Amino acid sequence: MTDILARDRNGLVVLDYETCLDRLRSRNVGRVALVEAGAPTILPVVYAMAGNAVVFRSTVGSKLEAAESSRPIAFEIDEHDTENRQGWSVLVTGVADVVDDPEIVDGLDALGLDSWALAEAGDTAWIRIRAEAVTGRAAPPRD
Amino acid sequence: MTDILARDRNGLVVLDYETCLDRLRSRNVGRVALVEAGAPTILPVVYAMAGNAVVFRSTVGSKLEAAESSRPIAFEIDEHDTENRQGWSVLVTGVADVVDDPEIVDGLDALGLDSWALAEAGDTAWIRIRAEAVTGRAAPPRD
Repeated sequence: MTDILARDRNGLVVLDYETCLDRLRSRNVGRVALVEAGAPTILPVVYAMAGNAVVFRSTVGSKLEAAESSRPIAFEIDEHDTENRQGWSVLVTGVADVVDDPEIVDGLDALGLDSWALAEAGDTAWIRIRAEAVTGRAAPPRD
Repeated sequence: MTDILARDRNGLVVLDYETCLDRLRSRNVGRVALVEAGAPTILPVVYAMAGNAVVFRSTVGSKLEAAESSRPIAFEIDEHDTENRQGWSVLVTGVADVVDDPEIVDGLDALGLDSWALAEAGDTAWIRIRAEAVTGRAAPPRD
């Protein structure tokens, strides 16, 4: 953890961009937050990294509708060790776009990302988060 | 899992209210989503259940500010078994209030809920989510 440098006002360690990307690449389940009628909602998604971008598959519904209109979106992963009161989280904020370039879609399909929620679903699309910020925090072991 | 009755349009099992509460009571780390300047953000929180309500401690900051103005909030917990492609999530949506009744605060303090992020923090407050909806979904084992 030699890449950890700074702390925020709550005493949490600030994770740098490369550390955030490494952690994003080490997982495949996260949560998306969207705003619907002014109120936030949170949905778990199975995801992958396409380069430095978070991508996930969605059926027609709120997630996809948000992407179609390029509404703001947040994506988060975290891990917690409750016994030792340690944990970290990475947050990606930006807008979500439907990926419709056939060549890119073929590449994404080749990732083999198979959302559990789509077992009986109909139309699906690839959603890619165009990140405006990628930030991370960690609660290190107490002294 | 005899309490599981229905499936949603994505083929996910719908968890009933009591099952959602049981799962909320079985955890102590979740995520809060808030809307800031029209965009969603997600923050991990250490929480407890006070009756049927999610409560957590916060320093002065975005979470608390949202509560002070009773802005809409979402809270989520989930668990995933990536190998077997099973998982579930519970979502609480509503508004967040600062708990300022001294008697209730004493009771909450007695819970011993000690947010990791507050190790070096100053002023804190108890936030209680006034739920408008508590919903859950599960992705059961594939056939």
